[in-house]
Amino acid sequence: MVKQNYAIIGLGRFGGSICQTLIAGGAEVLVIDKDEARVNDYKNIATQAIIADAQDENTLRSLGIRNFDHVVIAIGEDIQASILVTLMVKELGVKYITAKAQNEYHARVLTKLGANKVVHPERDMGIRIGRNLLSKNMLDYLDLSPEIKVAEIKITQNFLIGKSLMELDFRKNFALNVIAVRRNKKIEISPAPSEALNLNDSLLVVGLKKDVEHFSQLMDR
Amino acid sequence: MVKQNYAIIGLGRFGGSICQTLIAGGAEVLVIDKDEARVNDYKNIATQAIIADAQDENTLRSLGIRNFDHVVIAIGEDIQASILVTLMVKELGVKYITAKAQNEYHARVLTKLGANKVVHPERDMGIRIGRNLLSKNMLDYLDLSPEIKVAEIKITQNFLIGKSLMELDFRKNFALNVIAVRRNKKIEISPAPSEALNLNDSLLVVGLKKDVEHFSQLMDR
Ligand SMILES: Nc1ncnc2c1ncn2[C@@H]1O[C@H](COP(=O)(O)OP(=O)(O)OP(=O)(O)O)[C@@H](O)[C@H]1O
Ligand SMILES: Nc1ncnc2c1ncn2[C@@H]1O[C@H](COP(=O)(O)OP(=O)(O)OP(=O)(O)O)[C@@H](O)[C@H]1O
Ligand SMILES: [Ca+2]
Ligand SMILES: [Ca+2]
Ligand SMILES: [Ca+2]
Ligand SMILES: [Ca+2]
Repeated sequence: MVKQNYAIIGLGRFGGSICQTLIAGGAEVLVIDKDEARVNDYKNIATQAIIADAQDENTLRSLGIRNFDHVVIAIGEDIQASILVTLMVKELGVKYITAKAQNEYHARVLTKLGANKVVHPERDMGIRIGRNLLSKNMLDYLDLSPEIKVAEIKITQNFLIGKSLMELDFRKNFALNVIAVRRNKKIEISPAPSEALNLNDSLLVVGLKKDVEHFSQLMDR
Repeated sequence: MVKQNYAIIGLGRFGGSICQTLIAGGAEVLVIDKDEARVNDYKNIATQAIIADAQDENTLRSLGIRNFDHVVIAIGEDIQASILVTLMVKELGVKYITAKAQNEYHARVLTKLGANKVVHPERDMGIRIGRNLLSKNMLDYLDLSPEIKVAEIKITQNFLIGKSLMELDFRKNFALNVIAVRRNKKIEISPAPSEALNLNDSLLVVGLKKDVEHFSQLMDR
């Protein structure tokens, strides 16, 4: 497998975290920020760390940006810079561009200019935390599609306690598939049908979003 | 069920997104920001929107902060304000405080002062996006524990194509459980064992993190 190489423009908390994740995964990472202090924080982490204003096309050219497989544009507040840099990086011929957007309009501009993936880290994490706050027994979740959700839900209701998964027949009674059970900190994947539930066990379930939410609401009673 | 009420201090993208999610979930939400423009953006969304510096204890008292079930402190750059407001909200007796941290040290201070949940939205989303970039065939994932992962992985390798799930025996051969198959945009939960795989189907699998990652790397070849 050829080692993938990445460039990250903007070392805020988001860009910095991507850099650390990519380095931990064994990738080569060039980072660019106009702020010297930020670049210093990453000079021993990144493969190469450059102080520069990415809005300068000559800088991007001389760094050979077009030879990178992936470029992440993680500039935040300065929407104008984010847009201009996305335009230039695209025109230089980079194949895969991920860009951070501040809002929906910004996202649409980035997409039109050729960003392959536009991300909204604060918004998406706000949705996640907000949903966790709404349901105190839904511990975490993954939206697989607009209709399907995987979620971990804590068992709180007496009518489930002491019954086996077979007796409870989640598929029939709640239209959910139970994938795993977490008891204390241990997780059991593909639990036995004879497994009886305890109070505060949590179940990893998959199902239609409405059915997952319905069961989660039942546990919040 | 009693309607839960929430207060959010700080209407950046993160705090604003939490507000919208909670309102969509039917909750009552008070928002506070010292920036008038931000408060105006939310005055038709939130239940109540107040322009104020949350570092002023009298303001927090007169808003009756202690009567809220949950307070979210979503102040970013101004670490000092975030710390001071967390301290005051805790001393006023709020039961559940979620606070946003800028870095690990900040997080430790917030926890010591009594924040019940400390979140790092940019860092966590950076990890997520970084991992997605590392593996182009791992579409999304959920870490259930340090050892266990749920992930959606695209099928790319010829040796799997046209074979049924039963023949491939993921449990035996890859130590993974297949929870669902996505073909085109349709997702099939609990796919039949006779289901044959197509190129570009993706599988939702659960297993030990190392086994999920091993399979994902196999698909990245
Ligand atoms: N033209 C530019 N060239 C290089 N770096 C830039 C440019 N504009 C902004 N940056 C850098 O991008 C980084 C992220 O920008 P900013 O802090 O505005 O984003 P943010 O969304 O608040 O970040 P985060 O939420 O990830 O912490 C900063 O370190 C900033 O110095
Ligand atoms: N003392 C305070 N009282 C009220 N609001 C405050 C206070 N300090 C900061 N804020 C508000 O908190 C909000 C978030 O702060 P800031 O923009 O620094 O965070 P951020 O982490 O960059 O936000 P995000 O990444 O979510 O967009 C801002 O709207 C700011 O006006
Ligand atoms: Ca910033
Ligand atoms: Ca929760
Ligand atoms: Ca900000
Ligand atoms: Ca931010």
